[in-house]
Amino acid sequence: MAMAGGMSQTLKAILGLREMISRGDVQPGERMSELVLVERLGLSRTPIRAALARLAQEGLLEEIPTGGYAARAFSDEDVADAIELRGTIEGLAARLAAERGLSEAALEAVRAILAGIDALMARPAERFRFADYVELNGQFHDALAELPGSDLIRRELARVKSLPFASPVAFLEVQAQLPSFREVLVVAHSQHHALVEAIAAREGARAEAIAREHARQARRNYLKVKGDWALKARVPGLSLVTG
Amino acid sequence: MAMAGGMSQTLKAILGLREMISRGDVQPGERMSELVLVERLGLSRTPIRAALARLAQEGLLEEIPTGGYAARAFSDEDVADAIELRGTIEGLAARLAAERGLSEAALEAVRAILAGIDALMARPAERFRFADYVELNGQFHDALAELPGSDLIRRELARVKSLPFASPVAFLEVQAQLPSFREVLVVAHSQHHALVEAIAAREGARAEAIAREHARQARRNYLKVKGDWALKARVPGLSLVTG
Amino acid sequence: MAMAGGMSQTLKAILGLREMISRGDVQPGERMSELVLVERLGLSRTPIRAALARLAQEGLLEEIPTGGYAARAFSDEDVADAIELRGTIEGLAARLAAERGLSEAALEAVRAILAGIDALMARPAERFRFADYVELNGQFHDALAELPGSDLIRRELARVKSLPFASPVAFLEVQAQLPSFREVLVVAHSQHHALVEAIAAREGARAEAIAREHARQARRNYLKVKGDWALKARVPGLSLVTG
Amino acid sequence: MAMAGGMSQTLKAILGLREMISRGDVQPGERMSELVLVERLGLSRTPIRAALARLAQEGLLEEIPTGGYAARAFSDEDVADAIELRGTIEGLAARLAAERGLSEAALEAVRAILAGIDALMARPAERFRFADYVELNGQFHDALAELPGSDLIRRELARVKSLPFASPVAFLEVQAQLPSFREVLVVAHSQHHALVEAIAAREGARAEAIAREHARQARRNYLKVKGDWALKARVPGLSLVTG
Repeated sequence: MAMAGGMSQTLKAILGLREMISRGDVQPGERMSELVLVERLGLSRTPIRAALARLAQEGLLEEIPTGGYAARAFSDEDVADAIELRGTIEGLAARLAAERGLSEAALEAVRAILAGIDALMARPAERFRFADYVELNGQFHDALAELPGSDLIRRELARVKSLPFASPVAFLEVQAQLPSFREVLVVAHSQHHALVEAIAAREGARAEAIAREHARQARRNYLKVKGDWALKARVPGLSLVTG
Repeated sequence: MAMAGGMSQTLKAILGLREMISRGDVQPGERMSELVLVERLGLSRTPIRAALARLAQEGLLEEIPTGGYAARAFSDEDVADAIELRGTIEGLAARLAAERGLSEAALEAVRAILAGIDALMARPAERFRFADYVELNGQFHDALAELPGSDLIRRELARVKSLPFASPVAFLEVQAQLPSFREVLVVAHSQHHALVEAIAAREGARAEAIAREHARQARRNYLKVKGDWALKARVPGLSLVTG
Repeated sequence: MAMAGGMSQTLKAILGLREMISRGDVQPGERMSELVLVERLGLSRTPIRAALARLAQEGLLEEIPTGGYAARAFSDEDVADAIELRGTIEGLAARLAAERGLSEAALEAVRAILAGIDALMARPAERFRFADYVELNGQFHDALAELPGSDLIRRELARVKSLPFASPVAFLEVQAQLPSFREVLVVAHSQHHALVEAIAAREGARAEAIAREHARQARRNYLKVKGDWALKARVPGLSLVTG
Repeated sequence: MAMAGGMSQTLKAILGLREMISRGDVQPGERMSELVLVERLGLSRTPIRAALARLAQEGLLEEIPTGGYAARAFSDEDVADAIELRGTIEGLAARLAAERGLSEAALEAVRAILAGIDALMARPAERFRFADYVELNGQFHDALAELPGSDLIRRELARVKSLPFASPVAFLEVQAQLPSFREVLVVAHSQHHALVEAIAAREGARAEAIAREHARQARRNYLKVKGDWALKARVPGLSLVTG
């Protein structure tokens, strides 16, 4: 119980820290003061330290030689690499699922999510809720991680999605602001369908390639908005990208 | 001059034969009678024979043990294989172009075709002309075949596009009849852009995968219409597919 | 019967022409005189013409504007492209076989060929016969073309192997002259095993990649010998490569 | 200084724990008692706890609901997945290096390692030292991780190599015991050369595929020895594989 309590304080600290970074309250290279964070987040030193260690492990912060942590500065290449890495591991999951073959039940479960997105996309524009898309899209990507039936792949995908800029939802908010928003969704959802089609047909090379290309949509979104500060504020950590 | 004249008679015979097959005038397995064809097409025996040999080489006809040719019967797998083969060789062209790198002039030329399709797609629905899309799409695929700067690849792509069902335009007519027509075009044209983006960035594996997936759109179109006889009549040779 | 006789004269003409080119009797760009060929090969004009047309279709000769045919000149890139094309289509065959799955009988048949090569390679050096390797290697590649169960793929692979420099055996003779000969065979045969392993495990992306890399061994062999005229004389058509 | 001292106690604890697991002193599923470990390793509780947390993060141990850690049980699939994951990320590194292009200096550095292995392999059998191969092979794989010039890729590769069974050296010891040892090295080193050749020629798809296939050699080694307990004792953690 004591431990569960400690966990939840740490989680609060992690979420609070991530939000500060998202909002741009932290500059690239800025040293993270434990005292300031204790005051700002209203938490004690132990969970703050655990949260700092966790964000360093994820790569948002880095250890500094004199002790403690500073916010990292990221380049465009860092963002592109994080997206490529996530796409590569999602591609591995998709390929293994296709090669190993899925049960009908597993296929039905993932097709049910697709049908949910189909129904959402078929709604008239005024009744389309983007939050529903984000939710269903998240479910689809979580389901994909389960398909190969491998603990290792599931763990690795969860980890890589927690890397800065790598999450499948990281740039969705940005996407919603683009003039071509609807067309980008049509393309992305077409990739969802093609991915499941390929897995069901046991076309592993195809499934892997689609998952990778799907991830690169995030890169295209990123490139479209990198000069737009209003949009950048909506993506966690994007204020740390200095070029 | 005599030879050029002979060529053009042969071309007439090839086109006439292809049209007969498209219209469903020929049944799968039916023996092609030279005498009947001479009468039907109003051409002499020599160009008819050359046309039969050519269509046999392309795979629409097959030689029969007793001499002469018969219309081949095709299965769903034959259609899928032809599309996969074309996508594979277009993928090779795209990958080699990316790996070898293109001049700015070559990139500009292919981007100009993309801009033409962009402009076409931006028109209001009542001014969108599908024939323009077919024309520009054909230009794009022809340009792709030139990009690696390889005579062999260009020749092979021309040949493979002449195989039954393999042409990038074979199923476009069908596509135009689908209720989701507009969305299919949006996806296909998004693939055109991603393909050029990948080639320009020298991402060969990505370029290859996109070209393959782009070809598979034809397979998806085929599967949607295979039970629809009215639509099938619009695709050359589709009446020869017996399942 | 008359036709079968005609076929065999044409075949003689094709083989005779190929041999002349292999021996370097024909220079790149040289016009092929029908009269000279009639005399040299001791065959009549009709089979000579058919053979010229066939070699033009394969790409060893090209039509010239004034009528007739000339020997083509090839570049290093032409050789590399032909090998890459063959590897790409063998890769397609391997991938489709893996994705579609093979019967145990089909797997056993191809494994029997591997076991034959295993036994050959296990012989002491003085009892190793290279001609046996060439024969078994040819059987393996022929079997690979059958595995997807697709007439189209089988036909296309047969055709592409007849292109200049593209055959899996084109550079084997050269390989036998290399000091690292034994090690090259060990690597190549290891790829045979890995390829069958991948197909049996339904790992299509892996099977495709191995088939491609296997073909590139021919490219490495080519690059090793391109300056060595004695070796070049052993590869059909290599005297037509001008750089 | 205090911190550096603490680090080194933790490192001792990590190495000590890993060795216990390698030797098979720990059974799959067995609870790790802090008290026993303190006594066995002669270290205090703090570094022991840090080491347990680290090995849990790497996946050798797992947290148990009642608190503390137990040794995980691994299946054959877990071993195969770890190798496939490492090969996939090494493949990503190789592909990005090829696509981005390397400086001549970077290529020379990696070719120097290849030349070192060439020289080693050319030695007569009695002067071949396997430890030298292990060292140079490690250098090659470390260099590969640097080639894309990406902090993220370097960090991720270091991390994935620390996963159970995923390291490029994990199964090398096993390999050295196989009768076909020499031939396996010839194949593996041929892949090293082909990999660098592909990167230098900017053939990214090829480089990625070779890196993946190279990793799968570890899987083949694993499958050869999984029933051989004497060999299994040489691979860290292999005693935790229960089938």
